[in-house]
Order: sequence, then structure tokens, then C-alpha cells
Amino acid sequence: MQKETQIYGLRAITEAINSNEPIDKVFLQKGLKGDLYKELESLIRKNGINSSYVPIEKLNRLTKNNHQGAVANISPITFFTLDELIERVEKKETPALFLLLDQLSDVRNFGAIIRTAECTGVDGIIIQKKGAAPVTADTIKTSAGAAFKVPIAKVDHIKDAVFYLQSSGIKVVSATEKTDNTIYDVSFTEPIAIVMGAEDRGISPSILKASDFTAKLPLSGEIESLNVSVACAVFLYEVVRQRR
Amino acid sequence: MQKETQIYGLRAITEAINSNEPIDKVFLQKGLKGDLYKELESLIRKNGINSSYVPIEKLNRLTKNNHQGAVANISPITFFTLDELIERVEKKETPALFLLLDQLSDVRNFGAIIRTAECTGVDGIIIQKKGAAPVTADTIKTSAGAAFKVPIAKVDHIKDAVFYLQSSGIKVVSATEKTDNTIYDVSFTEPIAIVMGAEDRGISPSILKASDFTAKLPLSGEIESLNVSVACAVFLYEVVRQRR
Repeated sequence: MQKETQIYGLRAITEAINSNEPIDKVFLQKGLKGDLYKELESLIRKNGINSSYVPIEKLNRLTKNNHQGAVANISPITFFTLDELIERVEKKETPALFLLLDQLSDVRNFGAIIRTAECTGVDGIIIQKKGAAPVTADTIKTSAGAAFKVPIAKVDHIKDAVFYLQSSGIKVVSATEKTDNTIYDVSFTEPIAIVMGAEDRGISPSILKASDFTAKLPLSGEIESLNVSVACAVFLYEVVRQRR
Repeated sequence: MQKETQIYGLRAITEAINSNEPIDKVFLQKGLKGDLYKELESLIRKNGINSSYVPIEKLNRLTKNNHQGAVANISPITFFTLDELIERVEKKETPALFLLLDQLSDVRNFGAIIRTAECTGVDGIIIQKKGAAPVTADTIKTSAGAAFKVPIAKVDHIKDAVFYLQSSGIKVVSATEKTDNTIYDVSFTEPIAIVMGAEDRGISPSILKASDFTAKLPLSGEIESLNVSVACAVFLYEVVRQRR
């Protein structure tokens, strides 16, 4: 179910964090003081929640209500932990298929990827807390509602998620043009996690290095780059094809 | 090169049509009379140009200039004829690959498809004059500039284009869920034209009937439909894979 997407006020946001509400981002007024404010700040840090310090005018634009210097976006969906995702696939008979998004930033691309993931049987999508496109009403619309169906986990660092998946017996394949292998050279029949990179700069070098395999899509023509949600779909369908 | 995208005035638009300028659509003021107006109307009909009759307020919103009851959108790209597209592939050594879009209506989907088409070596895209998403600045942006590189032909009816392609030795494969064949059951190594349908209602029944083959993408999950630009990419990459 879709929930309210915004809360405001220092106590309300503190309470929401303590109740494990799925908070996407907290906007805090620059230069504010006071105990409640400090408490909220440390709670945000402790829980690795995405936040930014903004002028009061920005907060006033976000809400007409008495925000006391803090406005938070609540995600309309409930996130999973990486452990929960892995636990779920351990019970499955078919090989795991995960998708890691390395700081993909466009909500429409994110939504389109969630939709394709639902259609190709992806077991879970893993995004990073900071720097990733949030799950907004637009994401959900572009996903055609798939955002309520595919489990999504938020992690502190995609790189740590890569190591954790590998230690759980899942091979990590990074989608990058910086390789000689095409998707047709890689076997996707084992348990696999596919990494897709950011729209502008692709996958971080440290994640590429940590991957078990790298693979590209063959490209003819002069444009030499596909939209990331399109590229992701072609990767996922190569998995589908090989696992038939 | 990108050109001016709007012209106005009865004489200017008449002249543009007579000079074969790539006109996307003409907006005519409802209930207008006069010789020049009648002449423009019959020219529009004769050339099968997309047009609609609108209240004067709509024209006033389109331009602040003295429009005399007519405003036309000029396409930023030059279109080809279907004959020209076929002539171009006859000189090629590799099998033809065309894409027919049956009244796809979203400019962002259209742009995304043009981009993927450029990356997969599509020889030409065929759209219908009426009911198709126009080539706008948004289309071009979403295409990452590919709209200037992939030849696009406008035809009166997609169905006639299907028959014409077939008579030129090109097999027509329609992308539809109303079939038992998946894309992995179809051979794409011959000269092929792939038909993608409209976002809402898919491919017209008469075009499905005229096709040589129909094929679907296997879908798991509950959403049961992919975005059309994503589905198109998976079809095109199956062609790429089979022709390696």
C-alpha cells in the first residue's frame, strides 16, 4: 500500500526513525541548535540515513506546516535488509538472481528497472542508502506497481554488498563497456548478482575490481551507449534465456 | 542539424508543404473560411499530413505571432520514404533489420527506441503519419542524438508497409503476448522487420494477421507487461545474438 510520503517536526522524525519507518531522506535546517535537534542529528548518523543541511526557505517550500527545522521523506515502500534477501533465496530451488544498482540517480530509470526485474523473476534489488534514486511516487508509477512486488534492500555501501553476496556463493557480474566479454560469453546459470552503474559514470572502479565477471553488450553504430534501464533489461533477459 | 520547430501563417505553411518540408502536424482554426485556408486544407489532405481543428485559443497558446488560423510543427529531422529505406539495404551485405512502430504514442519511448535501434544496427524505423509520437526536441534528447543517425520513414499505413516489406523479401515479426512462440523460437537471421505496438493496446489485429511470425518475451511475475522500449531492446538484442 502507498503511504504518506512526508513527515515534519523534530520529535515526529525522531520517533519515525526509532520505529524503523522507511525514511528516504531528512532535510535539516542549516545552523540550528538545541537538544532535540542534536538528538535527531546523531540518530540520523547512527542509522546511516541520507540527509542534507538546507536553508530554511527550502524547508518552507517542502511543507507549509510548522516543520521546526526538519522535514523527512518517507518511502512508500518497506525496505528489506540484505540478509533478509539472501535468506529468501536460500529456500528457493532455482538459482538466485539479484540486481545491484551502483548509485543510479534517475527515478524513471529506477522505476523502469524495477518493472523489468519483476517480469524476469529478480529475487531482489540492492541499492545504496546514499546517492541512489529514491523510491518516489514517480518511481512507483514508472515501475507499473512492481516496486510493491520486488523486494528492495538498502545498504551502506554497494561494495560491501558485493563481498557479502560473494561470501554467500553468489557470483557478481558487472555491466561495463570496459571489458572484452559480451553477455554471450558469460554463464548466468549459477546464482548471480548483476551490477548496473550510474547513468553518467558507470560502475565505481572498486566495484568493477571486486566483481567475478565483467560483461558488455555488443554495440554497433556511433552512439555507443544504451539507456541504463534498456541495458539492464537485455542483461536480465540473457539470464532468462540461459536458464530456460 | 536541428532546425526551427514551428511555423505559422497560411501562406508559410502552404509553401513549406510544397517545398516538402518535414511537417509533423498542422493545427487549423475551427470554422475558418477563405481561399488560402481551403487550399491549405486540400494540400494537407493530398499529402496525408497529420492535422487537427482547434479553437483559436489553442493557436494563441502555440504562438504569440499572427498565425492567421494555422500553426505547423516542423520536424527537426528529415524523413525518408519506405522505398529509400529498402533501396539502402539492397546494397548491404548483411541481412536487413527494420523496425515498425504501430502508433507508439510516447515521445520518450520513441526516443529510447531510436537510441537502441542505433546501437543494434537497425537499418530504418517505420512509423505511421497519423497517430505516431512525433519527433520532437524531447524525442531527440531521449534518443541521445540517434534520431539524426537512424533513417526514419513515415508511411500512410503500417499495414501497407508490412505488405510492401514482405514483397521485398523481408519477413515481418510482430511482438505480442498473444502467441505461444517466445523470441527464442523465432529465427532472426533472415532479413527481418520487427513490429512493436502502441503502449496501451499493442499491435492492431490486422497487422498481427498479416505478420509472418509472432513472438513474445517470456514473463514471470505478476505485472505481465514490459515497457515497450525495454521490450523492443530485448527483441533487437535477440537479433544481434542470433546474427553474431
